[in-house]
Amino acid sequence: MTAAALLHTPEGVRDIYNGECAGKLAVEDKISNVFHLYGYEDIETPTFEYFDIFNKERGSVTSQEMFKFFDRDNNTLVLRPDMTPAIARCVGKYFFEETMPVRLCYRERTFINNSNYQGRLKEITQTGVELIGDDASGADAEVIALVIDSLKTAGLEEFQVELGQVEFFRGLTEEAGMDQETCDALRELIENKNYFGVDELISKRDMPDSLRTVFLKLPELFGTLEQLKQVKYMVNNDRSRKAVERLEKIHAILESYGLAGYVSYDLGMLSKYQYYTGIIFKAYTYGTGEYIVNGGRYDKLLIQFGKDVPAVGFAIIVDQLMLAMSRQKLDTEPEKSGTMVLYDSSSQDKAVKLVLELRKKHKKAVLIRKSSKKTIGDYENYARQKGWKDMICLIDEQ
Amino acid sequence: MTAAALLHTPEGVRDIYNGECAGKLAVEDKISNVFHLYGYEDIETPTFEYFDIFNKERGSVTSQEMFKFFDRDNNTLVLRPDMTPAIARCVGKYFFEETMPVRLCYRERTFINNSNYQGRLKEITQTGVELIGDDASGADAEVIALVIDSLKTAGLEEFQVELGQVEFFRGLTEEAGMDQETCDALRELIENKNYFGVDELISKRDMPDSLRTVFLKLPELFGTLEQLKQVKYMVNNDRSRKAVERLEKIHAILESYGLAGYVSYDLGMLSKYQYYTGIIFKAYTYGTGEYIVNGGRYDKLLIQFGKDVPAVGFAIIVDQLMLAMSRQKLDTEPEKSGTMVLYDSSSQDKAVKLVLELRKKHKKAVLIRKSSKKTIGDYENYARQKGWKDMICLIDEQ
Repeated sequence: MTAAALLHTPEGVRDIYNGECAGKLAVEDKISNVFHLYGYEDIETPTFEYFDIFNKERGSVTSQEMFKFFDRDNNTLVLRPDMTPAIARCVGKYFFEETMPVRLCYRERTFINNSNYQGRLKEITQTGVELIGDDASGADAEVIALVIDSLKTAGLEEFQVELGQVEFFRGLTEEAGMDQETCDALRELIENKNYFGVDELISKRDMPDSLRTVFLKLPELFGTLEQLKQVKYMVNNDRSRKAVERLEKIHAILESYGLAGYVSYDLGMLSKYQYYTGIIFKAYTYGTGEYIVNGGRYDKLLIQFGKDVPAVGFAIIVDQLMLAMSRQKLDTEPEKSGTMVLYDSSSQDKAVKLVLELRKKHKKAVLIRKSSKKTIGDYENYARQKGWKDMICLIDEQ
Repeated sequence: MTAAALLHTPEGVRDIYNGECAGKLAVEDKISNVFHLYGYEDIETPTFEYFDIFNKERGSVTSQEMFKFFDRDNNTLVLRPDMTPAIARCVGKYFFEETMPVRLCYRERTFINNSNYQGRLKEITQTGVELIGDDASGADAEVIALVIDSLKTAGLEEFQVELGQVEFFRGLTEEAGMDQETCDALRELIENKNYFGVDELISKRDMPDSLRTVFLKLPELFGTLEQLKQVKYMVNNDRSRKAVERLEKIHAILESYGLAGYVSYDLGMLSKYQYYTGIIFKAYTYGTGEYIVNGGRYDKLLIQFGKDVPAVGFAIIVDQLMLAMSRQKLDTEPEKSGTMVLYDSSSQDKAVKLVLELRKKHKKAVLIRKSSKKTIGDYENYARQKGWKDMICLIDEQ
């Protein structure tokens, strides 16, 4: 193989270096700090696990979209496409006896084998949290506040959290007596914004006019909570009504946090994953059409791992966040500093002692041996380019 | 699948949580900080790459020991077993024009598909550096000083860096006129400490007695540099002599660093990888028989990626380091702190405002909603167990 051919990386993955890497790690550090401030504790899970952990009852990615391989005993392994089932597994395993809420956070890579033509990254970095064992609206509000606080601390200024509630739609379909197949078809039509299809499906079914109106209005049911509240009086089932009331409670708590202004509401936001049982949300900003955060409540996931507790959580898609921040010209790279110490063989001992002194004071110091092929000026340019603030030259200029 | 069956993780990988995870991340952070103090810059490469990047001319792991799978175009991908070839690829790609030394550091997972009966981890965390474009003994000394500084900063107190020089052995085999096959056989015998086999192989070859003596003494050629220096006068080839002289130069520079006491020398330390061209080293400590650091010089690797520059680097095996520190009862976990704020629905707003105040002062604060099934005493115990230093109770006790 030629050297040039060896330089390629597979489709959908990339190298990150120089200022971009420093910026990414600085943003991840800042976000981790916010998670810790809220009392979340770090967890790491394996990069690959048994396929079953992420299969369709538990995962958010189809089997075709997972990277699969075999262990030495011929079990199917996958690169984790998602952290939530892995953490749910850990809670079932290590926190089985815990009766207090469990707060976990992570900073990991996840892998989705998208088709190449989508042009999406196949390996991404996610930072996120899971709050397990608290079914109150306060828990929902806490994770939404944490999303907002994390994005602000990362340096993002303008963004929006869109908050939905899957129970609203489930209440409607229950009231209309729809079977699962019809629900799924309707959900897909709404998600694809196929309003003609929605109209056709709803019109041919027998249901009260008021309910039909809500179904048809669903794609428009987004905006401020004030605009959506009245929909409570148009439905005739507790499930949908309680779903809206839940959002009202969360909104009130977010007002205590002073963060309600970052949130808009969308009752037409649905999810194909059985996974979610209450709120679902996504955060968006300028510079990328993709969401930068997604999350929600999943009260029926942990029972699959043997522990019947409610849970709510989210993941920040760090690569999307970095892309957006870069397009918004927001600086993420930490300020550069440090000293370059230029030496030659006669000053090596002195140079070493000097950098030792600087580093002892927690100051960055890099030792550079002068090449006979380069001038001091070359090194001055280099120091400038690298952002080393000082340059100390221990060379006898003859 | 039952919930219990779903709790398993594949052979050789594990979850890390609670204090162990906090400790691991704190140690990694400390090590990264030392790398930055020495002027190294972060790089991230994809978790999987094309197989060819790590094949036998470039990699340190056999094909059988790599996790392999296919991309959508049927190319063979592997989970990276080693960072060095990946970084060499990046240097060939992004730093091709750079004529100054390049200092890169990383903190990544690597994957080796060991046979299960070895009981080794198949996914490990490595932190390490590569110093590219400097062939001087000062560069060798810098990375060894960096190993020592990193381990000390991580909190390890007693450890030893064993330093070898593959050129010494290569000079001997060249002087003896051995072909590659014989070299490999001899190397394997020495590595397996099969002294009878070494004796047999050497005895049946025609060579000067002094050279034969050096070959037979090779397994004993370790200790202080003082003990080994005289071997220079027993060989009759420049390559071996220069190899020892190189170690003397490195030793002198490590004395400038004040770190020479951490290093012992071993001329019988060999490597089966063509990869290394000068020094090779490993660091050991109590509590694990495995090395916690390995590294060396590899001046002929980068040419394979199109850039003919020398390089030296190392990787710290974080999992082995953590295991050793845990067995040595060295504390890695950061000090616990923070406030638990216990509230109920009547005090929610007050509780939120209180944690906001604390977090604004960069103090950890966790909100816990009181359950009617638990007593205040239960929460006091929980706060103690979690290491929250303060507990503020916003509950009306009737």
